[in-house]
Amino acid sequence: VTADALLRGAVATPAPRQPVLGIIGAGQLARMTYQASLGLGQAVRILAADPTDSAATTARDVTVASLEDPEGLLAFASTCDVITFDHELVDPRMLQLLEQHGHVLRPSAGSLRHGQDKLHQRRRLASAGHPVPAFRATDTLDELVGFGQRIGWPVVVKAVRGGYDGRGVWIAANPDDARRIWDEARARGVALFAEAHVPIVRELAVGVARRPSGHHVTYPVTETVQSDGICIETVAPIVGPIADAATALARAIVHDIGAVGMVAVELFDTGRGLVINEVALRPHNSMHWTIEGARTSQFQNHIRAVLDLPLGSPDPVAPCAVMVNVIGRSPGDDPANHLASALATPDIAVHLYGKMPRPGRKLGHVTALGDDTADTRLRAHRAARALTPTGAAA
Amino acid sequence: VTADALLRGAVATPAPRQPVLGIIGAGQLARMTYQASLGLGQAVRILAADPTDSAATTARDVTVASLEDPEGLLAFASTCDVITFDHELVDPRMLQLLEQHGHVLRPSAGSLRHGQDKLHQRRRLASAGHPVPAFRATDTLDELVGFGQRIGWPVVVKAVRGGYDGRGVWIAANPDDARRIWDEARARGVALFAEAHVPIVRELAVGVARRPSGHHVTYPVTETVQSDGICIETVAPIVGPIADAATALARAIVHDIGAVGMVAVELFDTGRGLVINEVALRPHNSMHWTIEGARTSQFQNHIRAVLDLPLGSPDPVAPCAVMVNVIGRSPGDDPANHLASALATPDIAVHLYGKMPRPGRKLGHVTALGDDTADTRLRAHRAARALTPTGAAA
Repeated sequence: VTADALLRGAVATPAPRQPVLGIIGAGQLARMTYQASLGLGQAVRILAADPTDSAATTARDVTVASLEDPEGLLAFASTCDVITFDHELVDPRMLQLLEQHGHVLRPSAGSLRHGQDKLHQRRRLASAGHPVPAFRATDTLDELVGFGQRIGWPVVVKAVRGGYDGRGVWIAANPDDARRIWDEARARGVALFAEAHVPIVRELAVGVARRPSGHHVTYPVTETVQSDGICIETVAPIVGPIADAATALARAIVHDIGAVGMVAVELFDTGRGLVINEVALRPHNSMHWTIEGARTSQFQNHIRAVLDLPLGSPDPVAPCAVMVNVIGRSPGDDPANHLASALATPDIAVHLYGKMPRPGRKLGHVTALGDDTADTRLRAHRAARALTPTGAAA
Repeated sequence: VTADALLRGAVATPAPRQPVLGIIGAGQLARMTYQASLGLGQAVRILAADPTDSAATTARDVTVASLEDPEGLLAFASTCDVITFDHELVDPRMLQLLEQHGHVLRPSAGSLRHGQDKLHQRRRLASAGHPVPAFRATDTLDELVGFGQRIGWPVVVKAVRGGYDGRGVWIAANPDDARRIWDEARARGVALFAEAHVPIVRELAVGVARRPSGHHVTYPVTETVQSDGICIETVAPIVGPIADAATALARAIVHDIGAVGMVAVELFDTGRGLVINEVALRPHNSMHWTIEGARTSQFQNHIRAVLDLPLGSPDPVAPCAVMVNVIGRSPGDDPANHLASALATPDIAVHLYGKMPRPGRKLGHVTALGDDTADTRLRAHRAARALTPTGAAA
C-alpha cells in the first residue's frame, strides 16, 4: 500500500482522514491562507516556485518545483485531495492536465480561465448581459486603431493573459501611442485586446466566497484606491444603492462563471452606473481588511469554500476598516526594521510578507479599525508610512 | 564569521536585522503564537521535545531536542535573540544556565519561578500584601494534618511544582484523605503544600501583556468555568466593581513579580472579595477568546511584549465572547473529522491544535461572538459538542 493509494482512498483506511489542501504558488496570499489554515487544524501543502517565496518560508510542508513542470505538478497533486491557487499564472494546459488526471481543482480550470484570459472573461460576461466596457479582440494594429477611431481616444489596451497590479494595462491616447504599445507588446509575444476608457468616479470591490454547491457569503462592499495600477488603499464598508447594486452584480457574475472559493469582483463606479473592471478567482488585496475587520477572514472562507465546508460570517466587526498597502520605497530597506515605529500607532494591525524589499513591490499591509473614516485612514497611512520611511538607507 | 556571531551582533552586519524569537516548547500555545507571528513577519524558531507536538507540525523552523539537555538548549538559544516559553515546565536550573550564558529570557528565570513554584508564588504575593488563601509549607504529613485541624477541613493540597489543568491539586476532606494524598504524592517524589479551601462564587481571569519597560495593556475581565480542574468555558467581558478590583489586583501582581509578556492572573470571587488562585506567565487558555474577540490577540501581544514592541489594543470587538474548549471524548476520534458539522453553527471560529485525540485532552477550542450572552454560549457549546460527538467510533 503506497501513501499515494492511501491518500486517494484506493484502499481502506482505518479512520476517516481529513482532506489535504494543496496550494499552487507561495506568495503572500498563500502565506495568509496558510496562517488561516492553522486555526482550522487543516492540513495544507504548498508548491513553491522558489524556496524564498513568502509562504515557502513560513509553512511546514513545502515542495519546491517549477510550475511549468508537468511531472512535478502531478506528483504534488497526487498528495492532495483539493488544489487551490495563490495566483492565476499557472499555464491553462497544466490545469487541464491536472483535471484529466482526476485531481480536484477549486476553482476549476474552466472557471479559472475567467481570471486568466481577460478577453474570454469580457466575452463571457458581455454575453451574459453584464456591464462591461465596449471591447474588441485586436489581432492586428489596424483593428486596434480602428477601434480607437470608432469609439474615441483614449482607449485601454490590455494583455489578454498574465497582467496584474497594473502590468499588462496601457492607455493609448492616440493612434501613435497605440502603435508604440502594439509594437512593444508584440515584440514580447503578448496578445492584446482593446476596450473603452471608462470615466471613473471611484472603484469598488466585492468579495464573494462560494462553495461548490453554490452556497455563498458576500463581504461588505469595499472602495479601492489605485495608484499606477496598484491598489494602495481600501475603505470598507461602503453602503447605499450603488453598493447594493455592486453586491447583486458580483453575486450574479460569480454564479455565471461557476467560481468556487473567494472571488473578488472589481467594479468602476462611473457616476452613471457600474462597469466591470476585473474578476479575480482567489483571495484578493481588496479584501485583506477582513483579517481583522470581519468576523471571518477571506482566507478562512476561501479554505472553507474550496473544501466545501460551511462558510463563516462576513459581517464587519467595526464601523470602518481601512487597509493601506506597504509598498517598497528604498531598495533593501526591510519594513520589518521599522515595526516598533509602526506599531506605536494605536489600534492598527501590521502584516509583513517576508519578501525581499524592492521599490514598488507589495511588502505588506496595515489595517486600521475605527468608528470614523477620516481618523481610521489617518492611522492606517501613518503606520504604513512608518514601515517605509523616505530615505531609509539600504 | 559564523552565523552564530552574526546573530549575536558580534560582527558588523550590512543592514539592521530583525531579532529572532525562540520559543521553548511546542504545544498549542506555541502554535497559536506562531500563527500570530506570521502577520508581523516575525522570525520565530521553535524548540520541540517531540516532532509530533502541536507547533512542531506547523512551524517552518523547528528544532527537536530534549528540554532537559543543556547542550541542546544552549545551541538553540545561541540562534535566538529573545527566548520565550510555551509552558512553565522547563527545569529552573536550565533557565539559570541560559541566563548565565547571556541569553535573554522573557519572562526571566526569576519571574518565571512564580509560575513554576506555587509555594514561592504564594509567599511572594502574601508578603506583598495580596490576597492569597491561608497556606503553609508542609514538609511532613503531621504539618499537613495540623494545618487542616487548625483552619478546618477540607483543605487544598497542591504540588509545589509541575501541576496544571487540575493535575497537582487535590482536596483533602479529612485527615485520612490527607494521608492518602500525602503517601501517593510522596511515593512519586512530589513536594506538597497546603492551603485553605476557599468558597467560590465564580472564577475570574485577567490577562495583562507587559513590556520590559513596564508598559502594559490589560484585557477585559473574563469569567472562567472549570470542570475537574480543567477550564471548559470562558465568558468575556465581565464588568462591574469586582471586575475593576480584579483588574487593579492583576496589574499590581504583574508589576510585583516583574513579569514580561502575557500574564494570566486567575482569581476566586468569594462573594466577599477576591482571592488569588494561580498566576501563569504565558498566554493562557482563559484569553483564547482574544484571537477573534479583541482588537489584538493575546498571542500577538505576547510577541510584541517580549520583543519590547508597542502593544496593541486589548479592546473587545463584540459585546460578548464565549470560548469553549474542545476536550477529547472518544479515543482516536479526531475533531477534524467533524469540522463540517461544527462550522454549520453560525458566527463561530474553530481552533484545532492537531494533537493526537485522547479522552480528557484539550484538542482545540471554539469562540463565539455575539450581542447576547445566552445565545453566544449556546452557539459556542453547540459547535464544541459537534466536534466531539458522543459515541463516535475510533
